[in-house]
Amino acid sequence: MKPAIICFGEVLLRLSSPGKELLLQSPRFDAHIGGAEANVAVSLHKFGHRTRVVSTLPDSTLGRACADELRRHGVETDAIDFRDGRMGMYFLTHGAGHRPAEVLYDRSNSAFAAAPADTYDWASLLKNAQWLHVSGITPAVSSTAAEAASLAMQAARKAGIQISFDCNFRARLWGSRAPEAPQLLSRLCEHANVIFGDDRDIAFMLGFKATAGDARREAADLAFKTFKHLRYIVCTERARASVDMQQLTGLLFDSQNTYTSRSYPLHSIVDRIGGGDAFAAGVLHGLLTGMSPQAAIEFGAAAGCLKHSIPGDFNLLGVADVELLLSEKGGDVRR
Amino acid sequence: MKPAIICFGEVLLRLSSPGKELLLQSPRFDAHIGGAEANVAVSLHKFGHRTRVVSTLPDSTLGRACADELRRHGVETDAIDFRDGRMGMYFLTHGAGHRPAEVLYDRSNSAFAAAPADTYDWASLLKNAQWLHVSGITPAVSSTAAEAASLAMQAARKAGIQISFDCNFRARLWGSRAPEAPQLLSRLCEHANVIFGDDRDIAFMLGFKATAGDARREAADLAFKTFKHLRYIVCTERARASVDMQQLTGLLFDSQNTYTSRSYPLHSIVDRIGGGDAFAAGVLHGLLTGMSPQAAIEFGAAAGCLKHSIPGDFNLLGVADVELLLSEKGGDVRR
Amino acid sequence: MKPAIICFGEVLLRLSSPGKELLLQSPRFDAHIGGAEANVAVSLHKFGHRTRVVSTLPDSTLGRACADELRRHGVETDAIDFRDGRMGMYFLTHGAGHRPAEVLYDRSNSAFAAAPADTYDWASLLKNAQWLHVSGITPAVSSTAAEAASLAMQAARKAGIQISFDCNFRARLWGSRAPEAPQLLSRLCEHANVIFGDDRDIAFMLGFKATAGDARREAADLAFKTFKHLRYIVCTERARASVDMQQLTGLLFDSQNTYTSRSYPLHSIVDRIGGGDAFAAGVLHGLLTGMSPQAAIEFGAAAGCLKHSIPGDFNLLGVADVELLLSEKGGDVRR
Amino acid sequence: MKPAIICFGEVLLRLSSPGKELLLQSPRFDAHIGGAEANVAVSLHKFGHRTRVVSTLPDSTLGRACADELRRHGVETDAIDFRDGRMGMYFLTHGAGHRPAEVLYDRSNSAFAAAPADTYDWASLLKNAQWLHVSGITPAVSSTAAEAASLAMQAARKAGIQISFDCNFRARLWGSRAPEAPQLLSRLCEHANVIFGDDRDIAFMLGFKATAGDARREAADLAFKTFKHLRYIVCTERARASVDMQQLTGLLFDSQNTYTSRSYPLHSIVDRIGGGDAFAAGVLHGLLTGMSPQAAIEFGAAAGCLKHSIPGDFNLLGVADVELLLSEKGGDVRR
Amino acid sequence: MKPAIICFGEVLLRLSSPGKELLLQSPRFDAHIGGAEANVAVSLHKFGHRTRVVSTLPDSTLGRACADELRRHGVETDAIDFRDGRMGMYFLTHGAGHRPAEVLYDRSNSAFAAAPADTYDWASLLKNAQWLHVSGITPAVSSTAAEAASLAMQAARKAGIQISFDCNFRARLWGSRAPEAPQLLSRLCEHANVIFGDDRDIAFMLGFKATAGDARREAADLAFKTFKHLRYIVCTERARASVDMQQLTGLLFDSQNTYTSRSYPLHSIVDRIGGGDAFAAGVLHGLLTGMSPQAAIEFGAAAGCLKHSIPGDFNLLGVADVELLLSEKGGDVRR
Amino acid sequence: MKPAIICFGEVLLRLSSPGKELLLQSPRFDAHIGGAEANVAVSLHKFGHRTRVVSTLPDSTLGRACADELRRHGVETDAIDFRDGRMGMYFLTHGAGHRPAEVLYDRSNSAFAAAPADTYDWASLLKNAQWLHVSGITPAVSSTAAEAASLAMQAARKAGIQISFDCNFRARLWGSRAPEAPQLLSRLCEHANVIFGDDRDIAFMLGFKATAGDARREAADLAFKTFKHLRYIVCTERARASVDMQQLTGLLFDSQNTYTSRSYPLHSIVDRIGGGDAFAAGVLHGLLTGMSPQAAIEFGAAAGCLKHSIPGDFNLLGVADVELLLSEKGGDVRR
Repeated sequence: MKPAIICFGEVLLRLSSPGKELLLQSPRFDAHIGGAEANVAVSLHKFGHRTRVVSTLPDSTLGRACADELRRHGVETDAIDFRDGRMGMYFLTHGAGHRPAEVLYDRSNSAFAAAPADTYDWASLLKNAQWLHVSGITPAVSSTAAEAASLAMQAARKAGIQISFDCNFRARLWGSRAPEAPQLLSRLCEHANVIFGDDRDIAFMLGFKATAGDARREAADLAFKTFKHLRYIVCTERARASVDMQQLTGLLFDSQNTYTSRSYPLHSIVDRIGGGDAFAAGVLHGLLTGMSPQAAIEFGAAAGCLKHSIPGDFNLLGVADVELLLSEKGGDVRR
Repeated sequence: MKPAIICFGEVLLRLSSPGKELLLQSPRFDAHIGGAEANVAVSLHKFGHRTRVVSTLPDSTLGRACADELRRHGVETDAIDFRDGRMGMYFLTHGAGHRPAEVLYDRSNSAFAAAPADTYDWASLLKNAQWLHVSGITPAVSSTAAEAASLAMQAARKAGIQISFDCNFRARLWGSRAPEAPQLLSRLCEHANVIFGDDRDIAFMLGFKATAGDARREAADLAFKTFKHLRYIVCTERARASVDMQQLTGLLFDSQNTYTSRSYPLHSIVDRIGGGDAFAAGVLHGLLTGMSPQAAIEFGAAAGCLKHSIPGDFNLLGVADVELLLSEKGGDVRR
Repeated sequence: MKPAIICFGEVLLRLSSPGKELLLQSPRFDAHIGGAEANVAVSLHKFGHRTRVVSTLPDSTLGRACADELRRHGVETDAIDFRDGRMGMYFLTHGAGHRPAEVLYDRSNSAFAAAPADTYDWASLLKNAQWLHVSGITPAVSSTAAEAASLAMQAARKAGIQISFDCNFRARLWGSRAPEAPQLLSRLCEHANVIFGDDRDIAFMLGFKATAGDARREAADLAFKTFKHLRYIVCTERARASVDMQQLTGLLFDSQNTYTSRSYPLHSIVDRIGGGDAFAAGVLHGLLTGMSPQAAIEFGAAAGCLKHSIPGDFNLLGVADVELLLSEKGGDVRR
Repeated sequence: MKPAIICFGEVLLRLSSPGKELLLQSPRFDAHIGGAEANVAVSLHKFGHRTRVVSTLPDSTLGRACADELRRHGVETDAIDFRDGRMGMYFLTHGAGHRPAEVLYDRSNSAFAAAPADTYDWASLLKNAQWLHVSGITPAVSSTAAEAASLAMQAARKAGIQISFDCNFRARLWGSRAPEAPQLLSRLCEHANVIFGDDRDIAFMLGFKATAGDARREAADLAFKTFKHLRYIVCTERARASVDMQQLTGLLFDSQNTYTSRSYPLHSIVDRIGGGDAFAAGVLHGLLTGMSPQAAIEFGAAAGCLKHSIPGDFNLLGVADVELLLSEKGGDVRR
Repeated sequence: MKPAIICFGEVLLRLSSPGKELLLQSPRFDAHIGGAEANVAVSLHKFGHRTRVVSTLPDSTLGRACADELRRHGVETDAIDFRDGRMGMYFLTHGAGHRPAEVLYDRSNSAFAAAPADTYDWASLLKNAQWLHVSGITPAVSSTAAEAASLAMQAARKAGIQISFDCNFRARLWGSRAPEAPQLLSRLCEHANVIFGDDRDIAFMLGFKATAGDARREAADLAFKTFKHLRYIVCTERARASVDMQQLTGLLFDSQNTYTSRSYPLHSIVDRIGGGDAFAAGVLHGLLTGMSPQAAIEFGAAAGCLKHSIPGDFNLLGVADVELLLSEKGGDVRR
Repeated sequence: MKPAIICFGEVLLRLSSPGKELLLQSPRFDAHIGGAEANVAVSLHKFGHRTRVVSTLPDSTLGRACADELRRHGVETDAIDFRDGRMGMYFLTHGAGHRPAEVLYDRSNSAFAAAPADTYDWASLLKNAQWLHVSGITPAVSSTAAEAASLAMQAARKAGIQISFDCNFRARLWGSRAPEAPQLLSRLCEHANVIFGDDRDIAFMLGFKATAGDARREAADLAFKTFKHLRYIVCTERARASVDMQQLTGLLFDSQNTYTSRSYPLHSIVDRIGGGDAFAAGVLHGLLTGMSPQAAIEFGAAAGCLKHSIPGDFNLLGVADVELLLSEKGGDVRR
């Protein structure tokens, strides 16, 4: 069996109002499963990798059904711990026109947030693994989750496994724990080989202020100086005429160069959520398969672009779909 | 403005899988608003009474939308306190055939459960009120909610307002607080003029064991001896061939007599949840409008029976609908 | 081309709340096309006959779409007159348990009701026709519609075409014109060879009061005495334990004998509306194909029973389906 | 209790085909409640005002359910008169691409249209009111409604209450009464302090023909000369590349100046209906809260723009949502 | 009865995932009826012509229901042969953003593909016909279907009926029979008066290679030289920014001139499938009603453009709708 | 890893009309995945066993999505062979009242039916397996599938693995190959340790005619005499008042005794399809866990009964759910 990519983080139930309706405008919710790390796991599986989610879910018909959805999309779920507790959720109101989407988190005291830091036996979980992916949402969820993320990354470091970290700063999630955020995040970044985040993330963690010129490059330089394992910093640039009309570009920094992808116009966006995770999975796929930095950021940007055409949090498309977009031979109907 | 009936308790968002599906079998939830006391309030409004829900809801688009649903059905919502916190919820899998329905509560740490006991200014809230209705779910939700329920009933007693209490014992909700339940519930019952509950509820609270013969009457006698304000004990009897085929009868006890309603066969039950609250509202309507005990229990049983034909937690039918059933002139199509 | 059966009456748009919900409980309506005579026309087409609806519909996208639905089910629609006006409609709340269904008519001033009595050129419309079917709903709709029905029947009588008339008395439709109803209905019955109606219909038209014993037979005798073209009176008997649990039997009277069909238990009724029209179409099919009176009433009762299993106003099943039920070899799955 | 804004007009049931389908393409309708004045009332409530709809609805489960929907969104419904009659409706086919939306009115002889002019006791209804809003749809509906609108405005004038009037000329509604329209509309305008309408409306009422240059300003000047209570004329300008791609700008005229709002590109319009009413409510909110003319027209244009992102006739967004758009800090996801 | 337009080809059941979902992302399919020739037949009926589909369908509830849908939209279905076999189908995943739509055919061994070449009695079927329309999909489906198409065209030629042929080359359908395609297609083109196809189609059939300059004109010249009955070649030009953002232009060639239509921007495309057939029907309508070549191509392009706004394979709009677009007076709401 | 249960057979896509509608009555299908052996595999996994489906599916987005659904429910899918071809399907019209359900198979020439007999490497597939389950549907599907089933059973026999065989005779599937059926089926039965089938199945295979008395026992005796590995014959008895009202009993025969389960009334059946497979899985679970024959048939009957309450082909309930029914303590709501 080939070595797996381990994604550690909370699996969420997303409840969204149908179409472009506001919450409870009509008495129905569409359900999707998501979570930053689960999204990466699903997408990487669709790109041909073995992926496993390490997480905690409630031991209920609901928690089991959420794990089933992950398994449906090819992610290994045997490392999920089921215990008493509630399901982490979020309510989503899709945006439209000039009305932004709205995410209402309801994940406090979830089974994942409440799980003790030593829930996960990392030595065993990281056997036959090739990569660990963690995001900045996990330390935001609870102190024990923050500690668990740290233990995971230390174990991976010890086992010689590559690590990626997606900053994903969400002020509302940190709540009263916000003052600890910069330190906690930057400690996790110390282990990372790949960081997904832009200059605002770096500024937040390291108290950096751009002097002039290219803030992104300056921030990257500081990060490379600060985080000794770091090989790549990766982020997107998003221009916006309205909620439905945007443009997406990928950027990848190594210690020397900046690689910029083709820019994709995004018209009639189907589902914005998970776009960043699809992008991250695309870049990771590039790095895992030995692409050049330029090829990796192109693959990531195309993957992130395509996610906007798929309902739900997951990017369910495969390598062939991304390559079709990269080849610019797509057409409007394949038959 | 006529005096209002005050219903104090948690307003819940119910999420049920469509039709007879299991949770997440297909990726959709139907949404309804409920809660034992809110259900009573809606039904009493449909019977022509002024009703107000006193509660706490999260100050979010979701919490506001839930209050809007109550207002839609005629309940006054200006006494609802909106504050930070999460929405109390439950997930419902409808039963069918020999598969029972399943309720999965997710209401811990809700805005209501977390609200301090002194959140509600009862002196002001009970002005121009004629009745207070509380249920045994409220003390189960949290210690502060238990204390709030007690304060409400004391204030009502002081203001000379009649009080009804629905025992509604739910072991899962009490959790580790279960040992306190008998004492907390019986203290609330001390204030009640009307108790909804059967001999098992009374046995639970008072440690009663039936000697022989008519356990219900014995339990009632003990309750009348114990609770000095008590005028009526009311309950239903439910016989069951399967989840979809049941029979419902109402029973009302005063200190002397037992009144038994007509029995209703329930075929092809549409929605079982809220049947007890519709029954309670029917009996209360009878008592509030001066019906005889027999007439009140007949009205309650017919109302409870009709609720089983309506999707959602609320009984949305009015006095004319109940009277049509009582008259046995219903027919299968009105045109 | 074989001679057609002409059905004259209003085509209606039915709007029903989904599932067992009350009107607007959720913000959606299911749409069906119906109307007593259109229902008979569709069912007779499914039994292999050529059928044409003569009617008036609004000349709008809505009216055209309603006619399209009739044509979809094989009814010829070229004799429908499209003119300015509104679409006749009704709102349906399905019944359940002990809650009866409710029909809310909204057909006043419809294009059909407003059409002048001389809208239809009967001499031409009845060419190559073998049967005319009219119901008591048409005279209830408006004075001009009543007059049009009378002209239709006179023309058919003159052309030597057989006539059936379904009494279908609806007090709410007649409204302030109710006092004229008995006379108008009995004048139409004078032309009928087959009347669908029971002793209450005959009593209503002829002021009959049963002396004792078999009211149905007495009423039939009076009708045969009064209406000189009459060959058969046909009706159903419906026993009811609840809205979802009924029993259906067909009865057919000629001047001498009473023919009674097998009785069908109706469990879990899917859609009650149109059951009478499906029954009528079944009996007419029997008469049109030369069945014995007993065979005709058996076919009609089985057809009426089967309709209760089909959503919407139309019975969409064919002769083979009815014969399968009559054969008692149905099974629960055909594969 | 703070003084209310009174909106007088018909409440309508809207039935639209799902998604972008044509009427009855699939057998379902989505239901919404609307009506020009009800739309304004809901939006003003969401902006924090007390609003009451004065209207007539059928005394049926349908009419009651429509009123419930208004109450759900915070509008006071106790001034609605329930009486026999039918529900005013319209059928909506959403537009798409180069296919315009289509509204098919079915409101003739509605309970509102049939209500006598003296149905409403304005002296009492306008107590504790601060504003009256009426639209040009009401006089189009029937002669009695026209007379009722006139009585309302006279009573408001007498009570010293400010009046706004939205011209909303709909030729199809006036039908054979069209020749009376200019005179009836301009009589109502005589009472108005604020008129929503553009130069074509003014031209229609006053027989005005622009000489040259700025037709809008010329028309406004004439209107200010003609209508002695008039303070503001307000309208929108809409540019259109296709049904889904438009641009919206607001214009406000006082007797001296013309104030023009920012222009909003409208991509991927969710629901076009009610955009004008949301705009009007936004401007009225500005005027009611003492904003400058420029600020009021900016608020109105942003509100009108946002409405295009919400399904149904109502703008359900609040002041904070509008201010977010005005601040240009919206983002594509709020979390 | 006016002479009919005969459309010969397979009627297909299309199953598409809801909204923009991938196949089976949620467990539901939307069903539509289509097929290149059926689409043309429906559209021509909506433009006022008598149309008949000649085809073979399975003699099952499914096959009958598909024919019913054609009849619903006005197409005569009495020339459809029902026999044992399976229903031809295709699965459609709608495209979005940069993700192309995907058609998955499942029509091998369908009742149509399996029908013997002599299934259709063309001498009788072409009586009272004025036009025959066939597409290049039919010879791709099976050898017998190819032979049947050839027999149809020979019979039409003999009967002096005009013939149109839509090349519609689909490599996947031809499969292993692809090498025969050029010869089979060009043999059918020999009968055609009107060919729908572009220079790639002609190159494919005739092995043509453009020398320089205007490839389309060169190809057309070759076709006019090769196919002696040919009067017009017609095609569209489609520019594409993304799946949702395109531009459509129509081109018509006669032996001398090239006629180019107005270009339509296509924003927010609702349903791309059937656009070519709607265009073809529009051009045929122009030719059938004696329009000039320029007018015919304008009508066709406008019809093709409008189809993109309608769910399903059929263009359900009429002449008035097309003329509204041609007039540029459309507006965004018609009321 | 514990040894797996191998289920060999075709995986089907089921398309059913919504609710109780006829096919295409409204333009939508509900999709489920099924197939006799896949159903057994899913149910056994829910009972705690490792299960693997061996099958062939089309290598398309559709085939992959069907496999994903199996994996979602815990079945191992790595032994599924993906190759060119079509998806096996069936169309289901749910029954209701006196209208039986109807299954319309569309599985000819599916990828599974077309797969060569030697597609499956049984020696490798049966490693670490404890049981092989095959049904009589597989030999009906095609000659190669019949041969593959035979090879599978021979390999299992050789590997010392227990074998169960469900006769599942479907005349329509065998078609022109029906004359071979008895011999093919009885050859497969020769390998079986457990046969699911009743006296009609045995009579069909062995040409048996009951002499008198207990036909089931006589047939069982003959089967035990004929099939030398046979340990148990298992079947259900189904009594039927209507499609919605049935009664289910399980029967298990060993060579000496007959074990009869409790009888379950089935009211308001949700989904009839898959009931037999759920029953088989229940009995197999009993045998696999060492239950007594009586306990095994009780478990099977309860499992079969519960399946009727779940939409789709799969029984998704676990051991605890079955035990709750067996304990008769179910209740109507679990909370």
